Amino acid sequence: MGDALLQTPESEKERLLNYFAHKITDILDWLAALSPDEEGGVTRLLYTEEWLTTQRSLALRMQSCGLETEFDAVGNLFGRLRGKDEGLPAVLTGSHIDTVVQGGKFDGAYGIAAGLVAMEYLRKTYGTPMRTLELVSLCEEEGSRFPMAYWGSGSIAGKRSFEQIVHLKDAQDVAFADAMHRCGFGEGKYRASGREDIGAFIEAHIEQGAVLEAEGLQVGVVETIAGQRRLKFEVGGEANHAGTTPMHMRKDALEGASAMIMALRQEALRRGAPLVATVGRLQVQPNVPNVVPGKVVFTVDARHADERELELFCLWVAETFERLAAARQLELTGSEWFREAPVPMDDRLKSGLDAVCKELGVSSRRIISGAGHDAQMFAAVAPTAMLFVPSRGGISHSPDEYTAPHELAVGVLVLTELLHRLAYAEEKLEEGTDEHV
Amino acid sequence: MGDALLQTPESEKERLLNYFAHKITDILDWLAALSPDEEGGVTRLLYTEEWLTTQRSLALRMQSCGLETEFDAVGNLFGRLRGKDEGLPAVLTGSHIDTVVQGGKFDGAYGIAAGLVAMEYLRKTYGTPMRTLELVSLCEEEGSRFPMAYWGSGSIAGKRSFEQIVHLKDAQDVAFADAMHRCGFGEGKYRASGREDIGAFIEAHIEQGAVLEAEGLQVGVVETIAGQRRLKFEVGGEANHAGTTPMHMRKDALEGASAMIMALRQEALRRGAPLVATVGRLQVQPNVPNVVPGKVVFTVDARHADERELELFCLWVAETFERLAAARQLELTGSEWFREAPVPMDDRLKSGLDAVCKELGVSSRRIISGAGHDAQMFAAVAPTAMLFVPSRGGISHSPDEYTAPHELAVGVLVLTELLHRLAYAEEKLEEGTDEHV
Repeated sequence: MGDALLQTPESEKERLLNYFAHKITDILDWLAALSPDEEGGVTRLLYTEEWLTTQRSLALRMQSCGLETEFDAVGNLFGRLRGKDEGLPAVLTGSHIDTVVQGGKFDGAYGIAAGLVAMEYLRKTYGTPMRTLELVSLCEEEGSRFPMAYWGSGSIAGKRSFEQIVHLKDAQDVAFADAMHRCGFGEGKYRASGREDIGAFIEAHIEQGAVLEAEGLQVGVVETIAGQRRLKFEVGGEANHAGTTPMHMRKDALEGASAMIMALRQEALRRGAPLVATVGRLQVQPNVPNVVPGKVVFTVDARHADERELELFCLWVAETFERLAAARQLELTGSEWFREAPVPMDDRLKSGLDAVCKELGVSSRRIISGAGHDAQMFAAVAPTAMLFVPSRGGISHSPDEYTAPHELAVGVLVLTELLHRLAYAEEKLEEGTDEHV
Repeated sequence: MGDALLQTPESEKERLLNYFAHKITDILDWLAALSPDEEGGVTRLLYTEEWLTTQRSLALRMQSCGLETEFDAVGNLFGRLRGKDEGLPAVLTGSHIDTVVQGGKFDGAYGIAAGLVAMEYLRKTYGTPMRTLELVSLCEEEGSRFPMAYWGSGSIAGKRSFEQIVHLKDAQDVAFADAMHRCGFGEGKYRASGREDIGAFIEAHIEQGAVLEAEGLQVGVVETIAGQRRLKFEVGGEANHAGTTPMHMRKDALEGASAMIMALRQEALRRGAPLVATVGRLQVQPNVPNVVPGKVVFTVDARHADERELELFCLWVAETFERLAAARQLELTGSEWFREAPVPMDDRLKSGLDAVCKELGVSSRRIISGAGHDAQMFAAVAPTAMLFVPSRGGISHSPDEYTAPHELAVGVLVLTELLHRLAYAEEKLEEGTDEHV
């Protein structure tokens, strides 16, 4: 098993980090410049011209780094470093190439760029790995153009299929299938997306939160991707004249909703991390300054790493909101419109990441991912892990998204070492112990 | 002085009420049918075709009731019963003919219909009055088409002028002046609107609140038209990812606004009637389910019959909101965008209405008008009073607006008696005592 990175003296580690910082900054700037938007951010939506240009340019860049490239039917791009034993399951790393509208240049792109830097370094330094190493630029994760998220990773994991996109259209009424076909992808094109030969998937990503920054840590080893429930509540009161309706005769839907919003936050704080609960969207009817609100509709987004804790919290929400509404003689209806179970990351890979960080002198902690990621799709078909680097101010999905070059490089260093241990080791991944990574 | 109504036996009063109920229902149904909308309500906006048809039809109906009619420059319509002594200031009654979009058939129209029934009855029963009696169908009060309210009464009272409407346009970009000219009105047309010869103005109106209904009373004698302040607050927090931002690291503008909304209601309840305070409009940014709200903008509408109490309450609002924002590290900016001082009604006319109700066996109370009315314009140039009849469920500005025929008739009875005392009396209004009404 190779452990050359660990054997480098401290000054050599610094030299390597500077090199990685230079390389990854170069790739991220280049990727961003391929799909700039007018607001100074990056907008690269699935199956657009900018998206296609980026994937094609990335294929050329992978080739120049010594990787064999291949697309699959949905447009996922793979860069392969063929292993000595092609019968062994492959080690994959990567993330998604698409962005939200007016996104930043790190979300998704970082995982691809980090993988490219790591694989180029490993190939140049150690040559052919034991197992095949693959970098994947997943076609889509955000669900920003069509109402469909995790299209790339879900297609690989068998959780997405062409039947699911038949009726989908974007905001300009373009059919999903038409957009896909225009880019040259679709059923029967290239290789089918489903994979059953993946030995491990490692995704590097920006945290999108401010926990690492606040604690001054370099890397987050994702414990679990939080489960989500999204609920919708309608509070019904009586729209009435703001001047002629005495306070005690009102049924003010907005005042009722306000009591619910405050109770939600207080209880989420009381129950503590990793629970988070948010009222992000709220609409008032009729929403006129001189009319007592007759109806308020709002959403609750609740997340937790533990399914049972999430379930208990949502029960508390329903009961409490019902009680607050009844006390005010308000009507209340609630419904759940989205649910995703928590996805724990692979224990052996997490321990492996912990060990790498410790041995490399990289400060780290286990962390819950409150956001969804491609890794949650891969976890269904392969041992999967994620590592986070800090997000300045916790900002993401914005042109203001930022991680310093040195912080990006530390993530690359950790990823490189883990990939080295996974792909260049003689042992079988499937039968190893924690020590094998 | 005539007091024939009072001398009628109880059975005769019932006969009269039935007669009034029949007459006023007929007029209100007829008026509503002139401007029906598709939703079963009434939509009659200033200077529209429906509006012009209604004013012209009403002029013909006034004439058929024995009144001389006349328009003024802005389109106010007057129906006159010329008095024996034309040198004496006139007694006016009436209200506005325009409605909100999808309004009901009582708001405004009731005051005109009640005046028409009363004046026809007085003419037929008592002949020519001592003073000139006038019914006015005011062209506009609601501000529903153009951003200008009280156009009709304000023009009479000298509080509105053609300079003020020069740049006004409606939602379809039609200029106020063009719409007015197309209906045949405008500067130099008909008689100039300003009046200085008004001895009294009495406006009958639906309550638009549920106080009379809740207390089982027939008439409200308006004490004061409440003063209003309208404020706008902007709460600034930090828009953040709903999944990755721990609860204790959030600056949630919506949670802050919720605390303000709850505090506002609690304090308004504590201070008690006639104070009312309402958050009617609220907007969240970015208003997305999975983003912590970064900004919330909302309005506060506060009303009170006492200017100083209103001022003190608004100071409390500003201080309390500031404190609630600071405790949450939220930014807060506030501004006042509308202010109207309370307008007390004329003491002698109020006492006159009290007396009429008492003598006619009509149950009544003094009441604060939380809504604005044309009467507040007239109060600047003449002794002015208002009487309210009950609104079922307090509903107004809606097709569901309703007052039962018998309730409408009681208002007509009180109005008729007051107009009789004011216009047929020998004494001068200007020098009389409470007894003269």
